[in-house]
Amino acid sequence: METRLNVVLLAHTPDPELSCAAAARQCYSAVGVDDLKKKMSEQQAKDLLDQVIKSGHTSTLEHASFTFGIEGISRACSHQLVRHRIASYSQQSQRYVNAKDFNYILPPSVSSNPELKKKFEDFVQTAAGVYSELSNAGVSNEDARFVLPNACETKVVVTMNARALLNFFKERTCVRAQWEIRAMANRMLEECMRVAPTIFKYAGPSCVTDKVCRQGKRSCGKWKSIEGARLE
Amino acid sequence: METRLNVVLLAHTPDPELSCAAAARQCYSAVGVDDLKKKMSEQQAKDLLDQVIKSGHTSTLEHASFTFGIEGISRACSHQLVRHRIASYSQQSQRYVNAKDFNYILPPSVSSNPELKKKFEDFVQTAAGVYSELSNAGVSNEDARFVLPNACETKVVVTMNARALLNFFKERTCVRAQWEIRAMANRMLEECMRVAPTIFKYAGPSCVTDKVCRQGKRSCGKWKSIEGARLE
Amino acid sequence: METRLNVVLLAHTPDPELSCAAAARQCYSAVGVDDLKKKMSEQQAKDLLDQVIKSGHTSTLEHASFTFGIEGISRACSHQLVRHRIASYSQQSQRYVNAKDFNYILPPSVSSNPELKKKFEDFVQTAAGVYSELSNAGVSNEDARFVLPNACETKVVVTMNARALLNFFKERTCVRAQWEIRAMANRMLEECMRVAPTIFKYAGPSCVTDKVCRQGKRSCGKWKSIEGARLE
Amino acid sequence: METRLNVVLLAHTPDPELSCAAAARQCYSAVGVDDLKKKMSEQQAKDLLDQVIKSGHTSTLEHASFTFGIEGISRACSHQLVRHRIASYSQQSQRYVNAKDFNYILPPSVSSNPELKKKFEDFVQTAAGVYSELSNAGVSNEDARFVLPNACETKVVVTMNARALLNFFKERTCVRAQWEIRAMANRMLEECMRVAPTIFKYAGPSCVTDKVCRQGKRSCGKWKSIEGARLE
Repeated sequence: METRLNVVLLAHTPDPELSCAAAARQCYSAVGVDDLKKKMSEQQAKDLLDQVIKSGHTSTLEHASFTFGIEGISRACSHQLVRHRIASYSQQSQRYVNAKDFNYILPPSVSSNPELKKKFEDFVQTAAGVYSELSNAGVSNEDARFVLPNACETKVVVTMNARALLNFFKERTCVRAQWEIRAMANRMLEECMRVAPTIFKYAGPSCVTDKVCRQGKRSCGKWKSIEGARLE
Repeated sequence: METRLNVVLLAHTPDPELSCAAAARQCYSAVGVDDLKKKMSEQQAKDLLDQVIKSGHTSTLEHASFTFGIEGISRACSHQLVRHRIASYSQQSQRYVNAKDFNYILPPSVSSNPELKKKFEDFVQTAAGVYSELSNAGVSNEDARFVLPNACETKVVVTMNARALLNFFKERTCVRAQWEIRAMANRMLEECMRVAPTIFKYAGPSCVTDKVCRQGKRSCGKWKSIEGARLE
Repeated sequence: METRLNVVLLAHTPDPELSCAAAARQCYSAVGVDDLKKKMSEQQAKDLLDQVIKSGHTSTLEHASFTFGIEGISRACSHQLVRHRIASYSQQSQRYVNAKDFNYILPPSVSSNPELKKKFEDFVQTAAGVYSELSNAGVSNEDARFVLPNACETKVVVTMNARALLNFFKERTCVRAQWEIRAMANRMLEECMRVAPTIFKYAGPSCVTDKVCRQGKRSCGKWKSIEGARLE
Repeated sequence: METRLNVVLLAHTPDPELSCAAAARQCYSAVGVDDLKKKMSEQQAKDLLDQVIKSGHTSTLEHASFTFGIEGISRACSHQLVRHRIASYSQQSQRYVNAKDFNYILPPSVSSNPELKKKFEDFVQTAAGVYSELSNAGVSNEDARFVLPNACETKVVVTMNARALLNFFKERTCVRAQWEIRAMANRMLEECMRVAPTIFKYAGPSCVTDKVCRQGKRSCGKWKSIEGARLE
């Protein structure tokens, strides 16, 4: 069955911005641990975080972690995702979980063309059929999965801290990123914005955050629309 | 002023054990993200965690993070602490914070001997005096600190995930670890036990957790008291 | 075309064991940097490494790095490989490299059965055909690849240090690991043994290295053959 | 005894630039592992590295590692150094190595003032004396070191890959970095430039590499001298 992206913020450090602000405060003052617990006002925390992030001292943002449940992504997408090494992953195993009725992701460039869409869907049926035949003949899940296409859906629980997320968003919200991981990154960013807007207002591709583009000016129209952009 | 260890658990992933158990469940079943949110019973979570940890699949424990405020430790201790690289640190800066009235840690082997204790305390006064003289003569904090002894107190906010903590406890609760970082590790473990007893009942030196000692049998009496111990 | 595993050790730290031994020596003696350069005898280096590894102080082994070129592995295998985060990867991109004539890996459990083998090969032809049709219709490589099966060959350059490799071998030479990544790990280990035999004689699954099995005794016959094994 | 910085490049991946270029080539072409071994021309490697680094795809630079022997730095400096977590360290232990005749680092701001210099040197003598008294009274090295000042020399073997080094140089060659770690970083960069000039010509503070300053314009005169600088 065709399926769609679903991103849920399962858990996060409580009061993520106050936690990071408290850590920043520890660096630059003689404040004791028991006073750290007396929370700063929200405004003080915001001001301190703004200052810290603008100065590039983002190590203090590592004290807030965010755990996402993600489903409706292809194995092509997850293979890119897990290349981010400062993060934790628990992914549905194709070795343990039988996939004979697997869901799949259909790229828009294919679904928008009825003829190609039909070919793609027929192919997916073929793959599911061969998987079942192998499985019924006693081939283990771990070997039967060799016929599963990249389109096959996977589910994964991902934890990253706020600093790692800012880097992830820098790479993956860029219009040069693959459409699927970009959609996922944008959804993750929406969730982060809900619970930590002061930190994540600094998120985005490097053209937005640093006014630097490393992908070649001509490859994307976005930079033109950035007020005062001074791209290389 | 002499000061003492103070360890406070400032924040942690809410329901840390349910979070890790949900991640483990994602690996081995077809469960969807929305069902992951429907929390398992505590007993189911405990059973799953027990199984996962005994099998050595501790990557699922990375989804729970713990943030500690720690003060009353020496710079000798913090230098060892920050060598653990899968962790996040925000440490009081000796470059930014003036240390003319610094607190210090007195090792028990010194404080237990009145004569040595007096020498140590006099020395600390001398160090504080020289620091102030340098500071008053216009030397920056970052250069004046060259006279500060290892005994000088530092404060640090530390975040580690549960898997990194289990490794930290393995190394640092061993009786061969330095007394100060061992005391700190034991306090951190007490805090962890309060909020995640199923996970952290597996914490401890390798003689306890794996019945393996790599430090040489004769160096510690502990192994003798371990029921059924079969140490190398 | 069906293809087979090929593992080549492309580069490594020169004199990897002497480098690690020199680092170990730095920890425990007052030796200066210029004396570190005067290499120890091979025997002294071996003795020091033996002592260090037996004591579990494997951080000194991080100073030797090994770079492998690996081809003839499936995307199923590479997805497991890149989950090892203390490592560096440069993998052939399915976004950039057209895959219309892709090679594939055939699992032994399939190739040993002529009927299943035929089905598998026909399926691979179908996948290649659909890929070409999508590609010819103007679908980008990054979207056409959604039909590529896990069996599809990938190539990757991998760098790990000796400590990370020992951990990798512990996980992936275990008979419970997937056959493909196990074969790859065994080939990597052979290459390591050629250039750093003192370090890598300690490599292997935990039943061999620590006489501990976390996978359940009954799941593998290997433990029975280990002299003096005292498995949990 | 006062001592001075000494940085020696002990080892590095052979042909570091060809290794990284080969890895980059693997990402973007169908080239096989055996062809990777047939080295590119130096010019081809240079061109590919230039392109890769300008595009920000610096992950390919992780395949080249550099191991330094460093001595003549203070414990204040090493405490900053080891905060860089994507790196490997083997540091002379104050727990194991007796330090009664310790060398020390004298900050220029102190040594340039004869009166302060005298005070500093007298203080160091006092510290050495107290250390010896504690040591002679049976206090262990690990406890006697509590009186050792930050000025105390340490020696350390450090391994970082080229990508981590570029980040290290970005942070630590900035004039806002502490003078001591800056001097060390500059010496390390000189060594890197000798063996990998194509990669490390991109090294330096962010004002040089990215024309971005996060430290506040007024704090340093350097930005004024950067041709065409467009600092924030």
